[in-house]
Amino acid sequence: MTEQDSARGAAPMRALGTTRVATLADGIFAIALTLLVLDLHAQHAATQTQLLSQLRGLAPQFAAFVISFAVLGVFWYGHHMELHFIVRSDRVHLGITLAFLLTIACVPFSASLLGRNYQFPLAATIYGVNLCLAGMVRYAHWVYATAGYRLVDPSTDPEMIRYVRRIFLLVPMLYLVAAALAWLSTIVAFVCFALIPLLYVKPARPTRHLTSLRGISSSP
Amino acid sequence: MTEQDSARGAAPMRALGTTRVATLADGIFAIALTLLVLDLHAQHAATQTQLLSQLRGLAPQFAAFVISFAVLGVFWYGHHMELHFIVRSDRVHLGITLAFLLTIACVPFSASLLGRNYQFPLAATIYGVNLCLAGMVRYAHWVYATAGYRLVDPSTDPEMIRYVRRIFLLVPMLYLVAAALAWLSTIVAFVCFALIPLLYVKPARPTRHLTSLRGISSSP
Amino acid sequence: MTEQDSARGAAPMRALGTTRVATLADGIFAIALTLLVLDLHAQHAATQTQLLSQLRGLAPQFAAFVISFAVLGVFWYGHHMELHFIVRSDRVHLGITLAFLLTIACVPFSASLLGRNYQFPLAATIYGVNLCLAGMVRYAHWVYATAGYRLVDPSTDPEMIRYVRRIFLLVPMLYLVAAALAWLSTIVAFVCFALIPLLYVKPARPTRHLTSLRGISSSP
Amino acid sequence: MTEQDSARGAAPMRALGTTRVATLADGIFAIALTLLVLDLHAQHAATQTQLLSQLRGLAPQFAAFVISFAVLGVFWYGHHMELHFIVRSDRVHLGITLAFLLTIACVPFSASLLGRNYQFPLAATIYGVNLCLAGMVRYAHWVYATAGYRLVDPSTDPEMIRYVRRIFLLVPMLYLVAAALAWLSTIVAFVCFALIPLLYVKPARPTRHLTSLRGISSSP
Repeated sequence: MTEQDSARGAAPMRALGTTRVATLADGIFAIALTLLVLDLHAQHAATQTQLLSQLRGLAPQFAAFVISFAVLGVFWYGHHMELHFIVRSDRVHLGITLAFLLTIACVPFSASLLGRNYQFPLAATIYGVNLCLAGMVRYAHWVYATAGYRLVDPSTDPEMIRYVRRIFLLVPMLYLVAAALAWLSTIVAFVCFALIPLLYVKPARPTRHLTSLRGISSSP
Repeated sequence: MTEQDSARGAAPMRALGTTRVATLADGIFAIALTLLVLDLHAQHAATQTQLLSQLRGLAPQFAAFVISFAVLGVFWYGHHMELHFIVRSDRVHLGITLAFLLTIACVPFSASLLGRNYQFPLAATIYGVNLCLAGMVRYAHWVYATAGYRLVDPSTDPEMIRYVRRIFLLVPMLYLVAAALAWLSTIVAFVCFALIPLLYVKPARPTRHLTSLRGISSSP
Repeated sequence: MTEQDSARGAAPMRALGTTRVATLADGIFAIALTLLVLDLHAQHAATQTQLLSQLRGLAPQFAAFVISFAVLGVFWYGHHMELHFIVRSDRVHLGITLAFLLTIACVPFSASLLGRNYQFPLAATIYGVNLCLAGMVRYAHWVYATAGYRLVDPSTDPEMIRYVRRIFLLVPMLYLVAAALAWLSTIVAFVCFALIPLLYVKPARPTRHLTSLRGISSSP
Repeated sequence: MTEQDSARGAAPMRALGTTRVATLADGIFAIALTLLVLDLHAQHAATQTQLLSQLRGLAPQFAAFVISFAVLGVFWYGHHMELHFIVRSDRVHLGITLAFLLTIACVPFSASLLGRNYQFPLAATIYGVNLCLAGMVRYAHWVYATAGYRLVDPSTDPEMIRYVRRIFLLVPMLYLVAAALAWLSTIVAFVCFALIPLLYVKPARPTRHLTSLRGISSSP
């Protein structure tokens, strides 16, 4: 068996190992992102003033929608980056992925709860715990996949693996802190939820070379 | 016609034979999984105590959501595994697949019915019968595809085919038993529904080599 | 430029010309199929008798759901078969495809209307007209794509093209007849809607060789 | 490294750089297109006359649905065309894409608002501003991708780049004008919303050669 053969063998294995998982994940992310807007119900208004007050009343739900869109978008990007390194799949990996998608599928509900009851610390706590769980499951996912290079390519940069682990552990902690802060001030918690996704805007050094996704051309 | 040519000819045939079916199935699974959460309506609450009691009231619906997510996730995985072996498609196969997806599309409804009326054996029965039908159609799907190697590769391990048949016949029987048990105790039925998906966690010997999906590399 | 090069050139062209259209169409079909179930709302019931009568009340909506699932499944299969022959795309083709998907996206509404008002000929007429329009747009799609082999391979069997045209013209006529029959008896119209998708079960001679989708292996 | 190798290296890079973004975008477009119909609720009617008046009452919502379907279809086609030229991805590009998808995900809400309150200039303004924002974000997306050939192939025709920029700047301006006109006459605004998508029907010279998507065969 030549090296080329093994490369060919690897291609369908990888395709089957992660392609359909990626399709399901993309589908669930796309639907969760779009279902968020269903929380905004447009009603018939008798006058334009009533329409304006209806829209004002929707403002917190709209804010929860925009924040959750950013949160899910960033989680989607993270999942995208993870699958870029994960070349194999197994049952445990599929199970953790489904648990992760379960936490993602909950976001339209917890975002709706937050948008409609933003003044209560309990709503912000449930939202924060939901996102914290999503982050914790993702951390478990990455640790499982990278421990002993179980599901990643053996040539994967160990510094990058450790760096992503730290980031993936930091994010759920931040959501937990935001959830706790809600009991001091729900506004502060809301602001935290809005700011946490922005952390991804400026990539740190070890993953900066990934931004153009050029790293792949050197792997085969 | 060389062996390589036949491999090339097989690739697009397979792609057309099963790729778009897989896309439709992934789409329906992704939507069914995410629609489950629509059963949880967040309402405006006047006080935090009212919010808490609202959430407590949603607990059975949330339990039905989580269980159904696991059930659908396991069915999705099974469908994934089936399509791994099925290399051709025909009208009967497409018809059975659509019937299977019909039973899957019903799950958000029967899960909502169960979550809202968990105390009535009738609700658990309808849920159990829905999942039993999904399992029976899947069994018919596998039997049709594997009888005389109709839609699978002739080199497919016959022991594996028989093993999957037994599993695919066992699962709908379990759901039927759970549906029947509901008339003794709805709690027992609920627990059964929660436990059945866990059967997939520990793969038995004949399919264990599939867990890493490495088996594919030897097929071409 | 050798023949092989032109085949290579054709591959990405085809991919771009029809792949993303197919993805969008599969997405819309998957969602329309799954949204159908949203018409079935499960309510809290006070007693099991009330739950049973609630379910009985949903029976016509459930029937409309199952029929529409079959109708959409058959339309999806037809679209799948069409794209199998269409190797190029242009703006008119995209426009007709979007018009077709518009009629498909209407089905969850017209099916819900039929399920809730099955006793009125008007509801059956709107449902029938919706499906008739879907069929007419599909007919226009096929005529446009095949006239002078505009978007299909020049080697496509002309007998098959004419046969599919006749079928694609027949189907909307049948839905129109069913819609008209509703003014005599809504039951008869309902039965027609249930039977029309079954026409696809037994393929006629000119497309029978497509059932195994083997015809593709000879095309390159 | 031969030229063929570099072509091979480019293929997975491109796939990873834009394929999953395209999948997510197609998913969100497909869902947004289909969710539009959820605004049309079919109710039980006591008499056929009541059913007819119910349907008449839905007419403006149906018009908003059809217009929005055309608008989203055209935006989807534009996104499709953009991704045809964009061969790389980076974080900023992903961020702008998510912002674009956020404006797309808002359309089912603003369309529902317009359909239910078409007589108020405020509703038409919100709808127009939503589409204007979608267009502005798309313009930013294209400018970012093409500035210094950042994410497009260096051989991309500069005339085409400038032409698409002008079109992508024109469209949001038109939606802004339509939103402003609503304060003179909501009917005029409605008609504008219906006509703007038709601008895409007749392609201007610089992109006419793209209609058959044949331009690709010459790029590698």
